[in-house]
Amino acid sequence: MKILLNRLNYYDKWMLPGGFVYMDEHVDHAAVRTLTQRTGLKDIYLKQFHLFGNYDRVSSEESRSMFSRMEQMNPTPNDPAWFMQRFISVGYYAFVEYSRTHIPLNENEEIKWFTLAEVSGLYADHNAIIEKAVSTLRGQLNSVPIGYELLPEKFTLAQLRTIYEILLDKPLDRRNFQRKILSTGLVVKLNELHRRYGYKSAGLYRFDKEKYEEALLNGISVF
Amino acid sequence: MKILLNRLNYYDKWMLPGGFVYMDEHVDHAAVRTLTQRTGLKDIYLKQFHLFGNYDRVSSEESRSMFSRMEQMNPTPNDPAWFMQRFISVGYYAFVEYSRTHIPLNENEEIKWFTLAEVSGLYADHNAIIEKAVSTLRGQLNSVPIGYELLPEKFTLAQLRTIYEILLDKPLDRRNFQRKILSTGLVVKLNELHRRYGYKSAGLYRFDKEKYEEALLNGISVF
Repeated sequence: MKILLNRLNYYDKWMLPGGFVYMDEHVDHAAVRTLTQRTGLKDIYLKQFHLFGNYDRVSSEESRSMFSRMEQMNPTPNDPAWFMQRFISVGYYAFVEYSRTHIPLNENEEIKWFTLAEVSGLYADHNAIIEKAVSTLRGQLNSVPIGYELLPEKFTLAQLRTIYEILLDKPLDRRNFQRKILSTGLVVKLNELHRRYGYKSAGLYRFDKEKYEEALLNGISVF
Repeated sequence: MKILLNRLNYYDKWMLPGGFVYMDEHVDHAAVRTLTQRTGLKDIYLKQFHLFGNYDRVSSEESRSMFSRMEQMNPTPNDPAWFMQRFISVGYYAFVEYSRTHIPLNENEEIKWFTLAEVSGLYADHNAIIEKAVSTLRGQLNSVPIGYELLPEKFTLAQLRTIYEILLDKPLDRRNFQRKILSTGLVVKLNELHRRYGYKSAGLYRFDKEKYEEALLNGISVF
């Protein structure tokens, strides 16, 4: 599992890619716009997971130095007092197959994938935002479907289980996983086999797109 | 299942109890403060579930008439333009055993429990907020523990199942429910029986408080 972070040139702290919400823009739309601007990715399902609203989540030193970097990059008549105000952040997560993404280069910043273990000392409360994202998505694996963005159209249950194992950072019992996933009705068995050289062939599955999208909105029904 | 709503005197629309966040206050703390001020309830677990950030979620007519009602109740030197700005709302839900609550009376407003079916025509997007709360909590029944605020210390699995049935608005299979709940490790079987006159006695259980609180933070681990 890797996380995308960016850093302004000559600024020492990495941060989560983010942006501001326009006065006449839905907050969820601002998240989609920011994702596309930052990563070039479109039609990715973004899951809003938490509002970070602590009043001292950005230190005044961080605000000051960040504002001065932004001013150097792109001088505007902005009042520095505006940037020194209190901001709240809404966190959204998305899953993408990162080797398939093409992040646009930007002369003012670096943007890079990090492993979870490499992430420390981020701007403001961004480490806490990542921790919350990881713990939320681990909890939500029981109620929010996953895998559509990450798998080919036809996949084996072993491939799907691998995604859960990576996110949970632990091995899962093959039979239990199979029973639970099939009980959700989210995946449909195809009348085709995945050929694996030297191994027994494995059954292929696809997502039931309608059930998958309903589950994205209303949660998986296990009970 | 009932929902607590309030209405300002001489204002025609009911709304979800809410409040504003102080400049030097954590958003989550503002939610707890508002709950206590509105309902007198303390030490209730509040679950932040969604940020409502559409730019046109409150009509200007609604803002105007609400502001004028608030001014009549409690004249302040507030600029009406302040109240006519765009506001975002963060939704939190909590479960309480409503017959045990004592809502403080307030001369400026009514406050009352409604069934889900009775709720319509609320202020702003508050109907959509309730719909999102209900669909979220139904989905989260697989990942967020429930029942601690609603049950006595010792309870039967039938009592716990009833809570799930009320929230999901459908009957659940007794055996499947038992298997799933026990597999979470959240409930502990006691060496005691619940006496039911005329019926077979049922086993009593309690929540494992440590696991319950860990699950509130990080989700139930089914996988």
